[in-house]
Amino acid sequence: MSIHGYPKTNWQDFIEASHEPSPSDDSPLSNRDLLKPADRFVKRHIGPRSHDVTYMLAALGLSSLDELINEAVPQTIRIDGHLNLEPPRSETAVLNELRELAAQNKLFRPFIGMGYSGTVTPPVIQRNVLENPGWYTQYTPYQPEISQGRLEALINFQTMITDLTGLEIANASLLDEGTAAAEAMTLCKRAMPRKSKANTFFVSELCHPQTIAVVQTRAEPLDINVIVGSHEEYDFSEDTFGVLLQYPTTEGDILDYGPFAEKAHEHGAIVVVAADILSLVLLRPPGEFGADVAVGNTQRFGVPLGFGGPHAAYMATMEKYQRIMPGRLIGASIDTNGNPGYRLALQTREQHIRREKATSNICTSQVLLAIMASMYAVYHGPDGLRRIARRVRLFTGVLAAGVRQAGYTLNESPVFDTLKISDGPRDQAAIKYAAQAKEINLRYYADGAIGVSLDEATSRDDLAVLLTIFGVEMDVESLADRVKLGYDAPHQRTSEFLAHPVFNTYHSETKMMRYITWLQNRDLSLTHSMIPLGSCTMKLNGAVEMLSITLPEFSQMHPFSPSDQTQGYREMFRRLESWLAEIMGFAAISLQPNSGASGEYTGMLTIRAYHKSRGEGHRNICLIPSSAHGTNPASATMAGMKVVVVQCDENGNIDVTDLKAKAEKHEENLAALMVTYPSTHGVYEEAIEEICDVIHAHGGQVYLDGANMNALVGLSRPAADFGADVCHLNLHKTFAIPHGGGGPGVGPIGVAAHLVPFLPGSPIVAGVGGEQSLGAVSSAPWGSAGVMPISYAYIAMMGDWGLTVATQIAILNANYIAQRLEPYFPVLYRGKNGRVAHECIIELRHLKKFVTVDDVAKRLMDFGFHAPTMSFPVPGTLMIEPTESESLEELDRFCEAMIAIRGEIQDIQDGKIAHEDSPLAHAPHTAQVIAREDWERPYSREQAAFPSAFTRKSKFWPYVGRIDNVYGDRHLVCTCLPIEEYE
Amino acid sequence: MSIHGYPKTNWQDFIEASHEPSPSDDSPLSNRDLLKPADRFVKRHIGPRSHDVTYMLAALGLSSLDELINEAVPQTIRIDGHLNLEPPRSETAVLNELRELAAQNKLFRPFIGMGYSGTVTPPVIQRNVLENPGWYTQYTPYQPEISQGRLEALINFQTMITDLTGLEIANASLLDEGTAAAEAMTLCKRAMPRKSKANTFFVSELCHPQTIAVVQTRAEPLDINVIVGSHEEYDFSEDTFGVLLQYPTTEGDILDYGPFAEKAHEHGAIVVVAADILSLVLLRPPGEFGADVAVGNTQRFGVPLGFGGPHAAYMATMEKYQRIMPGRLIGASIDTNGNPGYRLALQTREQHIRREKATSNICTSQVLLAIMASMYAVYHGPDGLRRIARRVRLFTGVLAAGVRQAGYTLNESPVFDTLKISDGPRDQAAIKYAAQAKEINLRYYADGAIGVSLDEATSRDDLAVLLTIFGVEMDVESLADRVKLGYDAPHQRTSEFLAHPVFNTYHSETKMMRYITWLQNRDLSLTHSMIPLGSCTMKLNGAVEMLSITLPEFSQMHPFSPSDQTQGYREMFRRLESWLAEIMGFAAISLQPNSGASGEYTGMLTIRAYHKSRGEGHRNICLIPSSAHGTNPASATMAGMKVVVVQCDENGNIDVTDLKAKAEKHEENLAALMVTYPSTHGVYEEAIEEICDVIHAHGGQVYLDGANMNALVGLSRPAADFGADVCHLNLHKTFAIPHGGGGPGVGPIGVAAHLVPFLPGSPIVAGVGGEQSLGAVSSAPWGSAGVMPISYAYIAMMGDWGLTVATQIAILNANYIAQRLEPYFPVLYRGKNGRVAHECIIELRHLKKFVTVDDVAKRLMDFGFHAPTMSFPVPGTLMIEPTESESLEELDRFCEAMIAIRGEIQDIQDGKIAHEDSPLAHAPHTAQVIAREDWERPYSREQAAFPSAFTRKSKFWPYVGRIDNVYGDRHLVCTCLPIEEYE
Repeated sequence: MSIHGYPKTNWQDFIEASHEPSPSDDSPLSNRDLLKPADRFVKRHIGPRSHDVTYMLAALGLSSLDELINEAVPQTIRIDGHLNLEPPRSETAVLNELRELAAQNKLFRPFIGMGYSGTVTPPVIQRNVLENPGWYTQYTPYQPEISQGRLEALINFQTMITDLTGLEIANASLLDEGTAAAEAMTLCKRAMPRKSKANTFFVSELCHPQTIAVVQTRAEPLDINVIVGSHEEYDFSEDTFGVLLQYPTTEGDILDYGPFAEKAHEHGAIVVVAADILSLVLLRPPGEFGADVAVGNTQRFGVPLGFGGPHAAYMATMEKYQRIMPGRLIGASIDTNGNPGYRLALQTREQHIRREKATSNICTSQVLLAIMASMYAVYHGPDGLRRIARRVRLFTGVLAAGVRQAGYTLNESPVFDTLKISDGPRDQAAIKYAAQAKEINLRYYADGAIGVSLDEATSRDDLAVLLTIFGVEMDVESLADRVKLGYDAPHQRTSEFLAHPVFNTYHSETKMMRYITWLQNRDLSLTHSMIPLGSCTMKLNGAVEMLSITLPEFSQMHPFSPSDQTQGYREMFRRLESWLAEIMGFAAISLQPNSGASGEYTGMLTIRAYHKSRGEGHRNICLIPSSAHGTNPASATMAGMKVVVVQCDENGNIDVTDLKAKAEKHEENLAALMVTYPSTHGVYEEAIEEICDVIHAHGGQVYLDGANMNALVGLSRPAADFGADVCHLNLHKTFAIPHGGGGPGVGPIGVAAHLVPFLPGSPIVAGVGGEQSLGAVSSAPWGSAGVMPISYAYIAMMGDWGLTVATQIAILNANYIAQRLEPYFPVLYRGKNGRVAHECIIELRHLKKFVTVDDVAKRLMDFGFHAPTMSFPVPGTLMIEPTESESLEELDRFCEAMIAIRGEIQDIQDGKIAHEDSPLAHAPHTAQVIAREDWERPYSREQAAFPSAFTRKSKFWPYVGRIDNVYGDRHLVCTCLPIEEYE
Repeated sequence: MSIHGYPKTNWQDFIEASHEPSPSDDSPLSNRDLLKPADRFVKRHIGPRSHDVTYMLAALGLSSLDELINEAVPQTIRIDGHLNLEPPRSETAVLNELRELAAQNKLFRPFIGMGYSGTVTPPVIQRNVLENPGWYTQYTPYQPEISQGRLEALINFQTMITDLTGLEIANASLLDEGTAAAEAMTLCKRAMPRKSKANTFFVSELCHPQTIAVVQTRAEPLDINVIVGSHEEYDFSEDTFGVLLQYPTTEGDILDYGPFAEKAHEHGAIVVVAADILSLVLLRPPGEFGADVAVGNTQRFGVPLGFGGPHAAYMATMEKYQRIMPGRLIGASIDTNGNPGYRLALQTREQHIRREKATSNICTSQVLLAIMASMYAVYHGPDGLRRIARRVRLFTGVLAAGVRQAGYTLNESPVFDTLKISDGPRDQAAIKYAAQAKEINLRYYADGAIGVSLDEATSRDDLAVLLTIFGVEMDVESLADRVKLGYDAPHQRTSEFLAHPVFNTYHSETKMMRYITWLQNRDLSLTHSMIPLGSCTMKLNGAVEMLSITLPEFSQMHPFSPSDQTQGYREMFRRLESWLAEIMGFAAISLQPNSGASGEYTGMLTIRAYHKSRGEGHRNICLIPSSAHGTNPASATMAGMKVVVVQCDENGNIDVTDLKAKAEKHEENLAALMVTYPSTHGVYEEAIEEICDVIHAHGGQVYLDGANMNALVGLSRPAADFGADVCHLNLHKTFAIPHGGGGPGVGPIGVAAHLVPFLPGSPIVAGVGGEQSLGAVSSAPWGSAGVMPISYAYIAMMGDWGLTVATQIAILNANYIAQRLEPYFPVLYRGKNGRVAHECIIELRHLKKFVTVDDVAKRLMDFGFHAPTMSFPVPGTLMIEPTESESLEELDRFCEAMIAIRGEIQDIQDGKIAHEDSPLAHAPHTAQVIAREDWERPYSREQAAFPSAFTRKSKFWPYVGRIDNVYGDRHLVCTCLPIEEYE
């Protein structure tokens, strides 16, 4: 392929569009150009100014961006022409367009239930967490010393979950209730004794239908036998390793699962209960009636509905399962000063270590949403939650009393918030007609019954309208007088919860605001400095992109609202899908996967489904290069494949000979290759086309890991330009959705035409997914729909050449860093012309006698920086990705910090200071350490705390000293520390 | 009067409504109570929990809040019954109500001009400044060491203004363009030589009409002769001390004022130019054609229209006038470590020192809005501003070419953004009809001409529609080709502006976000700790209150939009006025005054107008107690009154004997008494009714300074319960509008029935003000309309008893502090039963041999607190006001800090440490000082930086050491420092 038909490089477009008149420059733009809006996002998103680019190119010995791209990116895979997208649009125009799309949604009051409830997001949390870049731009808390704020918020979350579920340990969130249930299923399987051959998972038919669907999808490639049925009629056999129950049931009934759990245990099965979080405030918790695992959604704790997500799901279990529980777990430990500090516990459980032996691929969690939910509990406290829950219970009781009086049949069991109503004076059609007239959504069962779920946001007036819809003539107040709020034994909760002071202190808004601020100030985020995480693309999350996600028509939409009410969302998805398809060169996109790992898994399922559809279901070998992200082998395994590792050569490239050999060897059963491009080593492999051809020639499909798409957008389309069949995209990396401190992640997939029929669908919402859909992989039809406006805005504002320029500058920034650091820290891998891609790996192994990678990472904190990716993909190295949003000044500031650190290492090498005496060994330095009287170190306090000019202008203070990970794992504490520990 | 008819105290209402069920408490609320919403703002707004209140009452030896109120507040002035307002409503309900009100406004595209323009608020500024409590909850930067962030932003503002106007010095903002012009008029007068008797101020008829009106109102009581006319025809006499011109004129013409300015100077007159800030980017600045003073509005630099305000006006002048320039001035200085630091300069100019000798009463400025405007300039830089201005110029050129071609008559002079169009194929009625159909507002002159002003927010499509409205058939692009952008001499700007690095560095959003964050982190705000400023009522500014001010239908409304488009705003005003009237016991409210001082002044004008209307215009004596706020005498003087000071007795109360004597002495000419209640000494004077009676008996009116209304709301109504005739309210104190770091202030007045006819009006908008209106006191009819939703939400959510409980708790909190601190710092004044009101003054004068008030204030910073009010109203004391929003824990934390400081003073008293060696003398301690090697102080670094347990949990670090005020005033620098100073 060749490049033609494009009169100027994108960079020239950028310069011209960004060009501002200056006094000496009388006619810099034509009048027609000047007619265009002045609020051009592209120049705001990209860090370096045009003169910086000139300077940086010169530093690289280059005269143009084209030259750089020609050297870095193989010609053969370059896009022929340019992206077929609209040109960049102004911030105002796109914001208005999103407002218009929002206005096309119709916001009915949602009484549909099914695991999604109206909630009141406390404005103090909305403003100071959800809309605050100090909370939404942080990275995953892998560096605990500069993450104590969100770690505390997450341990509050874990404490809240263990308290409410009555179980011993909880993780720091999962993606949604459906996938949490699926994760629970595999947890049960792993918990079986080694010799167990049990392979059946029983799922109550009273679970939410989308949960059942996700569990079924997950079970199929793992050959787990899922039986859906009535738990009362279920006949246990020794083959049953676990059961899943819904509490209260999807129809609203509060059942006594105690006897069933006992029976399950007798048969060696593990009991999983999917429980409504708010109901647990009033109801006997699962841990008290025999549940071994509880899962659920915390959305109704103040997190907007967002048409299905993102929300934080939870999982709680018993301590004995802590090491096989999926997801991230926050634990307490101590720092070098003996002070308490939080950190990610038991990280060895993570899939990036276990790779193909992993039984879960979960990586991203829903940190931002888990924090919101935990803050909601902090703000309301146990008494406040009890009032909210009782009010919901009362409303449900009022409605029940009314409709019963009016002659309907309804739940015979006690209820919390949901009723199933039938056989009354009005039939479903009449009720539906009346409800629609009142702009109310109800659940319409296929059997003619009506479901109604009430929630915190329901008002007395809503309740009155609901009564009217059913033709009830009594008024709310007199019905309320009849309702008995308490539950009879065994249903009533009797155990205490949320007794920790953190849930009983911050109940005025002033205190809450300050608590949020205190925690925020313990965390380093993009508001302070660059976060150069390799493969994580910590680019700008533009404020304009964030503005529309809190428009009520987006944020308050129930995921199962009727299609005619969701036209704004649907139109946005159509456009976003078409743009992403164009960018990737694919035929279609599924927005359903709600994390990168979920995207990988979904992509592998499409490949599996494709082979099966062609009668080649035996194809189950997945080739994966040794350099792959740890999620790749985990995802492949979950999709029922066997992983065969392909070696890399010394330049970090896939060993094509080995690849060919293995492709040939496994020709009969070859299912797929999973490959990251550019590679996790930060280079564009020249052979990628050949690699894809080899796979195709042997009957396999090519799965492209989109983690590094920020190096490709506008330069090369994985499908159209080098032959990928399926690829996931991390919208939270490449397309500007914020990392939220470790989630939400959003991982849509793109597929070539032959895979379209298999795209994931929804058991609830018609018209989603392909004709031979592989099933549902998330609870909600469009996954994390509520944050999609961010990527929509990003692409619309960047437009055709803006996206391309962003990629070019991302590559330039990485090469500039590589060039500046090379004399101090050799760059490990480069492409054939000596260029890196959008990130670079720098070498520290030659210094390992003098310093650890950890030392360098912690010392960077003293300079006000977050460390790059440590020891991935190569142990003993750092992987740096600056993104296009970082300015030349910031790159220089980072490089200067690294160079200064190199000097400190040199002092150790030169014997001027012992490692154990050096600032590297003692980093990071807290303010309290600096203020200590007993400073007996050979370096000065100034060198410790203010090692650069910038730190004197803006100092970020780590809140704790270096955290002891081993101590934490040995003394595992995963709930809030007793308050005395902090005094 | 007696209290009856109210079955329970408000506090009992609060307890009941806040009561949450607890496990042991099976039926805490009736089911009917439980039907009410759970998101009750009252319990969020108020700091102490009910058990805290019990504890605090016990500490005071009391058993109920009623007992406290009975002891503190004289029975005779207590409200009979309770406020006739609705009960508290939920956050959600009020937010929805405000959304509905917003929806009743119709948002047409505003091309009206007249000093208000559409603008694009950069989202990074909206989110991180306007919507961020870290920026909007700060106090006025009187304590510079913990205010360096906004001080830098404000010196950026001053630099921006001096650069753009071509003048030497600028202040840190004024209230609006009209009052800025009026302030300029009095500046001119003061600038006259002592012997000058010149008394005429010429105002060009081409100024904006509201500016002319405000100037006329201001001139009248000062007996200044204002002549409005054509500057070309004006015949200078020696009586003219100043002139005011508009540039470009209100009709859009760019005139060469050079010759006129020369003539003015020849006659000894000072030239004031009201200039459009954006036009100055392209046009020769006023300072280059002879202006001595420039004033204007910076609204179009990214500040929402907000139906007229709040916006930051500016004033720039020559250095020789710096000491007579009104308003706050930020200057550079150095700290004790020799580092640069900013502070308020020349504070001796402020009215609180000059009192009745003041010639301006201005106090509050528009800090938050000035910061937004300066950030806008930082973000766009000179080149970006030039592009925006050129685009506006181009659009205007396109429209001009089009309408000229179509046969209309229009401006013959060059223009920037505004056209006056007449005598074309379509008449005004036809054009108006067409414009309305397209949802476009134009300016409709009385003579049948049409005014059109274009702005940054105008799109190409808007322009096309405008052409259509005038019946122009040519298209935008071909018209654009004809436009010549440059101006001929002398109009073209040739001088550089905004060359300082701060305007040329932060142009990517990432850098801008970090700059905002860096500055924010230098400022202590309510997000960190209480700000116990006496008389300033730093209460919670609830997030829910802030949410609606950025709804487009509120924020983007032009102040002169037709009445049928502003029904939402008008309905909100009607309700808010009725609530405020009820709270004060007044007949009517005017929302026009846009600061507390402006309210005082307006109130005094109503009294003046009242006396005049009764043929008693000679009444001009205003009695003011010696303890009054400095603005009182200044406002009275501006309203043409002579101030006679009334003495206070040793208990801080007005000396009633002296009052009677002076009232009698001046009986013939007695105009008014200005009195603060409860007094500035923090007590409820028992004699207030008698005092009011004395004044009335001698023909005077009682003006109540509403600064301390937070001690009265719901307990006593100034008009109905003790006889005030007029009172201003600080909505930014009592009614939850944030202080914004020193503004906006909002100061409506309430008046008794006999003063209603004189309320301020608008020259533009019909139906505002009384029938014998005193004229306009602000440019916009409803002053700072855009922030009124905050007070609306506050009152609606607090409701009848919520407001009263807030007052009770404010009094409780103050008495608790007085009680705890009394053993350490005697409380200066108490009421007859030994209680203080909502604030208390503590004594330090007995310690002055050992410590200064400043030492204590600065040392509090080390503890993470902002100092209370220093040396007002009594030198050598501190005045502490905690407000109802602060919790018991925070009060205790503050008291403990004060007690610890008392211990440090005791060490000096005891000779254990010399004052100059003590942490008090060296406070505040920066992190860099703590890290210094050469620590040779007798106290430890720990004691310096971490003097309390809380500081180890959450440390706020002052960014600079103690600032040298004298140095700063001697070496006055009021623009950005050279960048090297920071390296």
